Amino acid sequence: MTGPRTGIARAAIIGGGVIGGGWLARLIENGIPCRIHDPDPEARRKLEAVLAAADRAYGKLTMTPRVARAGWELAGSAAEAAAGADLVIEAVPERLEIKRRVYAEIETVNAAGVIASSTSGILPTELQAEMANPGRLIVAHPFNPVYLLPLVELVAGAETDPAKIDWAKEVFAGLGMHPLHCRVEVPGFLSDRLQEALWREALWLLHDGAATAEELDAAIAYGPGLRWAQMGTMQTFHLAGGEGGMRAMLAMFGPCLKWPWTKLMEVPELTPEFVDRVGAQCEAQAAGLSPRELERIRDDNLVAILQALKANDWGAGRVLAAYERAQADRGAAAGTGGTGGSDDAGDAPPAGPVRTLARAVPPDWTDYNNHMNESRYLQAFCDATDALMRLIGADADYIAGGQSYFTAETHIRHLDEVAALEPITVDTQVLGGAGRKLHLFHEMRHGRDGRLLATGEHMLIHVDLATRAASLPGPAVAARLAVLAEAHAGLERPEGVGRAVGQKR
Amino acid sequence: MTGPRTGIARAAIIGGGVIGGGWLARLIENGIPCRIHDPDPEARRKLEAVLAAADRAYGKLTMTPRVARAGWELAGSAAEAAAGADLVIEAVPERLEIKRRVYAEIETVNAAGVIASSTSGILPTELQAEMANPGRLIVAHPFNPVYLLPLVELVAGAETDPAKIDWAKEVFAGLGMHPLHCRVEVPGFLSDRLQEALWREALWLLHDGAATAEELDAAIAYGPGLRWAQMGTMQTFHLAGGEGGMRAMLAMFGPCLKWPWTKLMEVPELTPEFVDRVGAQCEAQAAGLSPRELERIRDDNLVAILQALKANDWGAGRVLAAYERAQADRGAAAGTGGTGGSDDAGDAPPAGPVRTLARAVPPDWTDYNNHMNESRYLQAFCDATDALMRLIGADADYIAGGQSYFTAETHIRHLDEVAALEPITVDTQVLGGAGRKLHLFHEMRHGRDGRLLATGEHMLIHVDLATRAASLPGPAVAARLAVLAEAHAGLERPEGVGRAVGQKR
Repeated sequence: MTGPRTGIARAAIIGGGVIGGGWLARLIENGIPCRIHDPDPEARRKLEAVLAAADRAYGKLTMTPRVARAGWELAGSAAEAAAGADLVIEAVPERLEIKRRVYAEIETVNAAGVIASSTSGILPTELQAEMANPGRLIVAHPFNPVYLLPLVELVAGAETDPAKIDWAKEVFAGLGMHPLHCRVEVPGFLSDRLQEALWREALWLLHDGAATAEELDAAIAYGPGLRWAQMGTMQTFHLAGGEGGMRAMLAMFGPCLKWPWTKLMEVPELTPEFVDRVGAQCEAQAAGLSPRELERIRDDNLVAILQALKANDWGAGRVLAAYERAQADRGAAAGTGGTGGSDDAGDAPPAGPVRTLARAVPPDWTDYNNHMNESRYLQAFCDATDALMRLIGADADYIAGGQSYFTAETHIRHLDEVAALEPITVDTQVLGGAGRKLHLFHEMRHGRDGRLLATGEHMLIHVDLATRAASLPGPAVAARLAVLAEAHAGLERPEGVGRAVGQKR
Repeated sequence: MTGPRTGIARAAIIGGGVIGGGWLARLIENGIPCRIHDPDPEARRKLEAVLAAADRAYGKLTMTPRVARAGWELAGSAAEAAAGADLVIEAVPERLEIKRRVYAEIETVNAAGVIASSTSGILPTELQAEMANPGRLIVAHPFNPVYLLPLVELVAGAETDPAKIDWAKEVFAGLGMHPLHCRVEVPGFLSDRLQEALWREALWLLHDGAATAEELDAAIAYGPGLRWAQMGTMQTFHLAGGEGGMRAMLAMFGPCLKWPWTKLMEVPELTPEFVDRVGAQCEAQAAGLSPRELERIRDDNLVAILQALKANDWGAGRVLAAYERAQADRGAAAGTGGTGGSDDAGDAPPAGPVRTLARAVPPDWTDYNNHMNESRYLQAFCDATDALMRLIGADADYIAGGQSYFTAETHIRHLDEVAALEPITVDTQVLGGAGRKLHLFHEMRHGRDGRLLATGEHMLIHVDLATRAASLPGPAVAARLAVLAEAHAGLERPEGVGRAVGQKR
């Protein structure tokens, strides 16, 4: 690795807590060597824990290869850390006198490096008031975990050199962050004023016994929080007004701003001029996208966020997972897709191949040729296999009980094209179902004209989900499968079974 | 489809705006027939737009087959809609007198169905005050978009029958929602008190000229909002205290609660008793997980959310995408990256198999077992095939010129599992490339430990896109392919080539 793009040869960090440690992780990940000072005798152990967490997160964050981490060392004092650093990040406790003492110490050894305070809300004008070179003091307020969250608020004090803000914008963007220049110096800046308004209300609700911490958190994480991960409160409410956007929202909620909102707290008066200002700013932010277009983007983001949380089995994602399992069961009970399946399939097996899928090709299964993408043929066959599983009783409950079938091998012949929204069907024949193995053959046809579109041949292995090893199916599943296999044993062996890729006919 | 799991034979919705339309979408998606009333002459058009948006979102939301949507119809009056409904959802404007008038009309035709108000904050005790049968009135407050966000706040009034709340919990959970019972009746309930505290502060900041709508939204969506999608403010701050959790957080910020927070607003006094209550509730919510363990969960969620947003090129995900591109450039400049591909591959073909894919498994490629779904193995192989196509010049321009390769036959061995966000690579060997045919073999491995996850063998046929018939590739593509095929001709034939499904080793 050559030098980092930020142009910083070495950085210093004063304070090794949650925020200082997070800065250290982000800086060395980006190839910037650091010296860090914290008087806590446990500092090294605590920093190493943060760095381990960050290393784990970075390993999953990007798809590009990571560059080698830069080195870091503990320094015995703030002065020792700061000497020779281009950037000195201050992350000490939120007391003005402590911060000013640290700046004085830094200034004994470092005359020109930018000093960036991580303060959550103290004004830079107050921070720089006693400095010899106050022009180089900025606020760069990050958010925990600093190594993952992109936001950093940049704030200048009355004496700050504006060029230092420009420099910091480039530096922090180079570290993968989103610098937000807070143009007006207000206590708490922007993000913490908003966060703390919410936090204060939560503390009061807890204080008054209206809700517990867990209930207050649920009131965010299962609803508004999913919106806030992608759009702030202004754009969110711009979409709550329907086709009329923020102006309609303010008109709609205008009457009840006095009721019940004003039971809670004073709000700015919604004069026509103020409504116009808010509406115009929301429209400017939309950058030409209509509320409808923004809604589609919001929905795509919500779907993606819900799926992301589902993969981690957490919060709103856990709700989705439970819903999905229930849907699968419901599909099974009803015989998914209007097919030949029924609850008592074991008693009265279908005489021929089983109809395991009947649906239209979803538009997002097609590629720019407007035919079904090659990978979606397998998705359709997977859905068909799932339907057959449910038919023999290997359903969501069975899987929850720790057993399932995994596909080990697949052979597909792509025989014809099919366009978006065209109907397709899949019929499935059991070629073998003894012991641990299940050998299936699917035929996909056009739902109207019957053209053969593809065949899928699959070998599945029954698996114990605890050990991930092959195992025998439970007796009920084995019995249902045996009945079905026997019924299919007399059927003609379909053309194409046992083919290898490229084999002559 | 038999009756829905919720036990509701028919529902009514009074009010067809953003909220009423969202309820309609969620109910019919779950197989519950609905009648909806809205006096707006544009109601049908507006509802159809919401239903189209919901249909699009549901098509992507789960991997289970959707059940058939139930039917719906517009009703000429609230009474006509409500007659015979088990559940009547009221979503009319936020004015007490309008809502009471609607309830009176409903009660002329419907004596026993549950009436659920979507109000954002009016107390159910006030809503039910003039009802003949007030015991059946509950608040069920949803969040926009109602068809996607799981949160619904349930609130009882003084006269509400508690059994109706229990019934509603089951019904809404059956619709894929997360019912939050607000046990104490306070105006604004829980979520809107929190949301509106934030919204009020945002309006003041905009009013005072401290920031624009876009800046205020950035202050949320690039930082705190990414946390709130998964953890509320209590659990988030429980993690800001480092190893000491919420108690350490309150001790740390105790001194500055007077400064700068109290410049903004009054807060509850942090008496030892109150700190103990808050701390104990946060610890109870953690359910045995230490702050360190919760941090790992938070980080996994943040990574997954950032990647989800990256796939949609939005907000914090766009920042990540830019960072990733810069990292890739940086890696390329420094000679890392390690793929065999290069722009002049025709002149200097890779000696071994070509690295055609290197990525993390996207969360939406995994199923409820949290391993990559079987169909996504083929999607990864398709992406790898596309990369190889580009390498030999069969790129987007070539396809736009009317020629392409179509896959005719595929054989996949699923050899091992891989979880969401784990890295995977694909290396590709050309087994044959003469004439109209292209025979490829892909090996998919785990990106860190090198485990072989799957192999894919594919026969592609060169096609004239106008006639859809097999044809010879253009001379430039043929030449590049010949060079690559010759370079690979000396490689060992990979294990597994030519296998049929179920064939003995």
